Amino acid sequence: MQFADRLKNVETSAIRELFKLLGKPGIISFSGGFPAPELFDVQGIELAAAHVLANDGRSVLQYGSTEGWEPLREALSEHMVKRGIEASAQDIITTTGSQQALDLIAKSMINPGDKVIVEAPTFLATIQCFRLYGADLVTAPVDENGVKVDELERLILEHRPKLIYLIPNFGNPSGASLSIERRRKVVELAARHQVLIVEDDAYGELYFNEPPPPNIIAIGQSVPGARDWIVYCGSFSKVLSPGLRVGWMIAPRALLEKAVMCKQFSDAHTSNLSQAIAAQYLSMNRLERSLNVVRKTYSERALAMATSLRNVVGDRVKFNSPKGGMFIWAHLTDSGSDSATFAKRAIDNMVAIVPGAPFFATNADRSTFRLSFATVNTEQISEGVRRLARSL
Amino acid sequence: MQFADRLKNVETSAIRELFKLLGKPGIISFSGGFPAPELFDVQGIELAAAHVLANDGRSVLQYGSTEGWEPLREALSEHMVKRGIEASAQDIITTTGSQQALDLIAKSMINPGDKVIVEAPTFLATIQCFRLYGADLVTAPVDENGVKVDELERLILEHRPKLIYLIPNFGNPSGASLSIERRRKVVELAARHQVLIVEDDAYGELYFNEPPPPNIIAIGQSVPGARDWIVYCGSFSKVLSPGLRVGWMIAPRALLEKAVMCKQFSDAHTSNLSQAIAAQYLSMNRLERSLNVVRKTYSERALAMATSLRNVVGDRVKFNSPKGGMFIWAHLTDSGSDSATFAKRAIDNMVAIVPGAPFFATNADRSTFRLSFATVNTEQISEGVRRLARSL
Repeated sequence: MQFADRLKNVETSAIRELFKLLGKPGIISFSGGFPAPELFDVQGIELAAAHVLANDGRSVLQYGSTEGWEPLREALSEHMVKRGIEASAQDIITTTGSQQALDLIAKSMINPGDKVIVEAPTFLATIQCFRLYGADLVTAPVDENGVKVDELERLILEHRPKLIYLIPNFGNPSGASLSIERRRKVVELAARHQVLIVEDDAYGELYFNEPPPPNIIAIGQSVPGARDWIVYCGSFSKVLSPGLRVGWMIAPRALLEKAVMCKQFSDAHTSNLSQAIAAQYLSMNRLERSLNVVRKTYSERALAMATSLRNVVGDRVKFNSPKGGMFIWAHLTDSGSDSATFAKRAIDNMVAIVPGAPFFATNADRSTFRLSFATVNTEQISEGVRRLARSL
Repeated sequence: MQFADRLKNVETSAIRELFKLLGKPGIISFSGGFPAPELFDVQGIELAAAHVLANDGRSVLQYGSTEGWEPLREALSEHMVKRGIEASAQDIITTTGSQQALDLIAKSMINPGDKVIVEAPTFLATIQCFRLYGADLVTAPVDENGVKVDELERLILEHRPKLIYLIPNFGNPSGASLSIERRRKVVELAARHQVLIVEDDAYGELYFNEPPPPNIIAIGQSVPGARDWIVYCGSFSKVLSPGLRVGWMIAPRALLEKAVMCKQFSDAHTSNLSQAIAAQYLSMNRLERSLNVVRKTYSERALAMATSLRNVVGDRVKFNSPKGGMFIWAHLTDSGSDSATFAKRAIDNMVAIVPGAPFFATNADRSTFRLSFATVNTEQISEGVRRLARSL
C-alpha cells in the first residue's frame, strides 16, 4: 500500500519511545502531560450531563452546527471577558480539543514548504501537526521570559513565515511565561509585519500566585490592525476535563470561515454532548472553585519537586522554578550530557522523565528534559527525585 | 491573509446554497440529512451517561488513547460479528463521526493529483473531504443495483486510482444498494488490482424489510488477499445519535497505524464520554429495539412519500422506491429540466429539496434531486409533495 508523502515529514519514533516509557508497573511517572484526575469535578460534570440530557436531550443528540453549540459559544464569549479578551460568539468556534484548532489552522493556512516559526522548545504535537501539512519549521529561542522577541523579528524578516506559534503562559515544555513587554512587542510585530500569531493558551488558568500578564490577543485590542493577525486557542482539557475533547479558537472572521469549512469535512462538528456539558458547567459557577483546588495542588507539587531537586540532585541539574502550569523544564549541567541516556537509566531506577530533544523542531538541545508534577503526590515526588539522583 | 492552496479545490457555494434553504420558517423540509430526533432513545442514553460517569468518571474524563476507548473497541468487535464481519478490537479504531474516518483515510493515503474513484452520485462531504487533500476524482456510474462493476474495472485500469469509495447500502443520495453479485465482483477487483476499497456503511441498519446483502468487507474474508484492500467505515449517527460524534473504521493494520498517527495530531482522540456511552448503550441490549422503531417509521414515511409522488406528481418525476435508508433519489423527466430551478420554485412554495448536481464529482446530471423522508411525518409528506407538484 502506498501512503501519502506527507507522512514522511513526521518522525514518530521519538513519540513511540516516549509512550513505551509509560507502561511499566511500579514506575513513578514524571513523564505524562495529563492533568490530575483526582481533581476532576466529577460530581459537577455528572450534574451538568444529567441536566442537558433531561432538558435538551433531542437537540444534544442531533447533528449540530460546525461552528459549535450556540450556548457554549455564548458562554465562552462571557468567559473570555473575564480574561480581558473581547470576542463575540461569532468570533469563536469550538473544536475537538485544542489539538483540532491547530489542525484546522494548519489545514487552512499552510502550503507544503511554507515557513512557520515555533518556539524552541515547543509542544510536540504541534510540530508533528504542522509538518503533516508540509510546514518548514523555524525555531525561535526562548529564555525564562518566553520567546526572545528581537530574535523573533529577525527570523520574521529572514523567513517571512506563514504564521508564528507561541505558548505564552507556562509553556509546554518550557514552563516559561512571556513577559508583558515581550507580549506588547509580539503584538507590534504581528501588526507591522502582517504575520499571523497563534496564541495557544492551554495553561493560563493554572497560575500559582499571580495570574499571568494579559493575553497577546487582549493586548492586540488596543493596537490598530493587530487583532486581524491574532488567533487564540483555548481548551477545557487542563481546567475541566481532557476526555470531553472541547477546545475553542478565536480568530479573524476570514480565517474562521476557512477553518469552519475544513472542520465540516474533518469531523462535521464536536460532540454536542461534550459541548453542552461544558456550557452547563460554566453556568453552574463551579469552575473557579475547582480551579482554585487545582492551582493550590499543582503549586504544592511544583514546590515539592523544585525543593527536592535542589536538595537531592543539586548542581547537576538546572531549572527555573515554575510559577504555573504542569512542568519543570531542566537541563543536565555536565557537558556532553544526553538526557535520552539519563531517561533510560531513570527507567531502570523506576522513574520516568521525557528527554527534551523531540520538543525542538530544529537544533535539539540534548541536555534538556521535562518533568511533570501534575499527577504525582509529594511522597511520590520525593521518592521519584531520589531515584533520579541515583540515575545521574 | 494568504490561505492554503488546497482550499481552492473545494467548491462551497453549492453547499452554502443548500444550507440557506433550511432556515425559512414554515417550510416543509425534504432537504436534510438528519435522522428523526423523536426516535432517539434519549432515556437509554441518559441511563448510559449516568452509569459511565458514576462508575468510571475519572477515566472517562481523563485523556484516552488515540485508537479509542478500549471497551468500545471490544463492543464494536462483537457488534460487527452480528453483521458477519470478523474484526478484533485491534482491527478497529474509533473516529469522531465517520466523517473523520474519511478525513483520516484521505490524510493517510492521498497525494495531490492522486486519482480516486467515487460513485456518481455520492456523499457530498466525501467529495469535498477528498478534494481538500488534492484528490482528482473520477466518477463511476450507478444504477438501481449500485455501482456498475464492469465500468468500475475499466476505470481502475485506465486511472490506477489510490482508492475507491463506495456506499453499498442505501447510498446517500442514490438510495441504491449494491447487488450481491456486484459485491463479489468488487471484492475480486480489490484483490486482483490491489486497489483500496472504502466501504462507507452509514445506512446498512436502516433496512425496511430484508437486511442488505453481506458487506463487502465480510465477503472479502473468503477471498484470499482481499481483506488487505478493504476499509469499512461505521457510524452511530443514523442508529443511535449523530450528536455524540462516534464512528469507527476497520482497516488493514498498516493503514490503521497511519490513520492513528494522523488522528493523534488531528484531535488526539474522540470524546471518551461519547465513546463510553456508546459502549454502555451497546451492552444494554436496547439498540435492536430502538432500531426496529426507526426501521418501521422510516419504512412508513418512505412508502408515504413514494405513493404521494406517484399519485400527485406522476410521470414528470421518476425514482426507484427505496428499500432502506433515508432518501429518495429522483429526476425530472422533462428534457432540459434543471433541478436547481425546480428547487427555487419549491422554496417559493414552502418545500425544500436538494438539487442533485453537487453530488456529482464530475458530469453532473442536473435533472436529479434528493428527497429525505426521515424527519417528516406522513401529513407533512402529503402536503410537501402537493407543494412540489405545484412547483413543477
